[in-house]
Amino acid sequence: MANVASCSPLTRESVQTAHKRIEQYIHRTPVVTCETLNQIASTSQFERQDGQPDDIPNDGVARPKLRLFFKCENQQRIGAFKARGAFHALGRLIEEQGLENVRRKGVVTHSSGNHAQALALAAKTHGVPAHIVMPTISTPSKISGTRSHGANVIFSGSTSDEREAVVAEVIQNTGATLVPPYDHPDIILGQGTQALELEEQAENLIAQDASLGVPGKTRLDAVIAPIGGGGMLSGICTALQGTGIKVFGAEPNFEGANDAELGLKQGKRIEKVKTLTIADGLRTPVGAIPWTVITDKEKLAGIYSVTEEQIKAALKLAMERAKLFIEPSAATTLAVVLYNEEFRKLVEKEAGPEGWNVGIVLSGGNTTVEAIAKLFAAPARSEDRAGGKVGMNGEKVAENVAG
Amino acid sequence: MANVASCSPLTRESVQTAHKRIEQYIHRTPVVTCETLNQIASTSQFERQDGQPDDIPNDGVARPKLRLFFKCENQQRIGAFKARGAFHALGRLIEEQGLENVRRKGVVTHSSGNHAQALALAAKTHGVPAHIVMPTISTPSKISGTRSHGANVIFSGSTSDEREAVVAEVIQNTGATLVPPYDHPDIILGQGTQALELEEQAENLIAQDASLGVPGKTRLDAVIAPIGGGGMLSGICTALQGTGIKVFGAEPNFEGANDAELGLKQGKRIEKVKTLTIADGLRTPVGAIPWTVITDKEKLAGIYSVTEEQIKAALKLAMERAKLFIEPSAATTLAVVLYNEEFRKLVEKEAGPEGWNVGIVLSGGNTTVEAIAKLFAAPARSEDRAGGKVGMNGEKVAENVAG
Repeated sequence: MANVASCSPLTRESVQTAHKRIEQYIHRTPVVTCETLNQIASTSQFERQDGQPDDIPNDGVARPKLRLFFKCENQQRIGAFKARGAFHALGRLIEEQGLENVRRKGVVTHSSGNHAQALALAAKTHGVPAHIVMPTISTPSKISGTRSHGANVIFSGSTSDEREAVVAEVIQNTGATLVPPYDHPDIILGQGTQALELEEQAENLIAQDASLGVPGKTRLDAVIAPIGGGGMLSGICTALQGTGIKVFGAEPNFEGANDAELGLKQGKRIEKVKTLTIADGLRTPVGAIPWTVITDKEKLAGIYSVTEEQIKAALKLAMERAKLFIEPSAATTLAVVLYNEEFRKLVEKEAGPEGWNVGIVLSGGNTTVEAIAKLFAAPARSEDRAGGKVGMNGEKVAENVAG
Repeated sequence: MANVASCSPLTRESVQTAHKRIEQYIHRTPVVTCETLNQIASTSQFERQDGQPDDIPNDGVARPKLRLFFKCENQQRIGAFKARGAFHALGRLIEEQGLENVRRKGVVTHSSGNHAQALALAAKTHGVPAHIVMPTISTPSKISGTRSHGANVIFSGSTSDEREAVVAEVIQNTGATLVPPYDHPDIILGQGTQALELEEQAENLIAQDASLGVPGKTRLDAVIAPIGGGGMLSGICTALQGTGIKVFGAEPNFEGANDAELGLKQGKRIEKVKTLTIADGLRTPVGAIPWTVITDKEKLAGIYSVTEEQIKAALKLAMERAKLFIEPSAATTLAVVLYNEEFRKLVEKEAGPEGWNVGIVLSGGNTTVEAIAKLFAAPARSEDRAGGKVGMNGEKVAENVAG
């Protein structure tokens, strides 16, 4: 990676520069709206009938007005926002070290998810060798997906120690540069670029169709994005600072996956998380650099968490009503907006009768119809998993440690 | 319905007029492209590895070049193209009989699917009472979906005789006008409007991004759409006549659902079909008026059919690769393009090395995550159904008769 000391500061201007650097390589993903989801979001949970438990009392239930603008990063290249950070980080590395040097040494990362495919694609685009260290227990589709971008897949055990040992070996043998998934300024700046697009696209949509806003409200009031390692959320905070647009984070709360929310409450970053939340992109604790951003109250307005059932309900609504094929991690944002009473009360109070225009980051769409089948065909699933031993794909719990 | 004799002729100009009539009520749905699906479509079935049976020999396998433009009618109002025909037919009725008359008498149809919801929405928009006759065996979500648009749902038995008897009763009691689902010029002209948009949107996309076409090819070569009752396909044939864009139909072939393909071969319309294809919007035989259009070789270039497994494979690819949440009926088009060797050989021969730009109509997205779960969680399903007694939702086979 480009040396951290030589990186641009985490400012809106740096995100704008990052956007210029990567825009030829990434998709400007669409922003869409959905009348039905606006109606559901603007109906109190008491009056609503969408399969949610009705244990919320009528008096005191939140009645916010919400108009939602979905940023479809599920339609980004490789199916997730991670392409932004990977193209930016590799681009910066090439600028700093020269293309020939980077091509000679290559890049390396350990990931079984979207970052692996993103780095593989960016590396292929620039003719750079990519070594991806993946646990032997990775699903065949992820392995073949990563190989399809021409990457060299190397297997390791699934603990962080085992993975890091293999990465160290690759670096020793090849001189490859490590490109971490989130804990680096160049990754953060790259991931933040989607917020610039979302801000502008929402304004354009409202300008074209007045019914999408309310009179006098021509732009976003808030953006909500998922937080796992925090590269994306801290990037969005950075991109939108000074715009008046509030930024919120969304997190699953299953088995302590809400480490960012809990860490903020106790004023200390939680460095280890062991969870098998269905939002599998959000099992990682927040990284050190993202933490410095999200603890700044000028930058982040709050983090809210949701249950597994709420994530599933939001996933179902996103697919069936808005026809958006997304992965569970992406549905956490919609779940907060629809089901987190604390968040909904905040909107009701701060927005008043005009309500808010809220940008919803749909971070990715890398799931399969078989995974959807498992989520929605087996009603006993959440009980099976209460023991905390086995995940939805029969996978074992591996400890997730922040980079 | 407006009197058939007083309807506009089935010409491109009439479709253009229909479009002006309805455009304020419908969505101009997006047209999207997908690099990965283009690659798969442009790879021979022999070289491809996407879970399809490899019983196709290497020699003689088709090697067409295909660039696909997906018209996302799954994002149309009520989740399917049917909104176009319903708004057009009701608008024409109001023009002919006056709003007060139509409001006094109301409209009626029998449908358990997308047409019911479409008519209910159009009627609500114009303040017209809508009576929807649905079989008692309809799924609760369809009943509540139709009621959510304010329609009066009336139950009947599931045979066509039983349904028609209830419709006749409604007409006698209320004076309501029957709005049929496909076999009427106003419906056909309405459904055809999507082709005008698709034609223009594909040209705009190619103009913005040269990599989507090939040099010198700035527009669509062909459009492929599903055919059930034939309202949509005959509308698209009508809309594109004289443009040089070829129009093809796509049909499931399970249990004789390919009645249009078979009818064209034997030179005679097939009036009854009894099938439980997973493409549940396409279980209906072609209607009499659509038949007059699709039998005209100046208007329709051909119909191709696909198996249940091919529809499932295409559905999986549309969701996982293009992130498009669609219903099985919509996937038949992509299935023909990916798996029908006869169609692929035709493209290879007619298009040559330049290939074709093909518009793919994704007709609707009204399915549920539970239905997807049933399709992809139960490997024994196709055998269960081979007996032809019970459909994917445990539904009974009802005879489908063309209107």
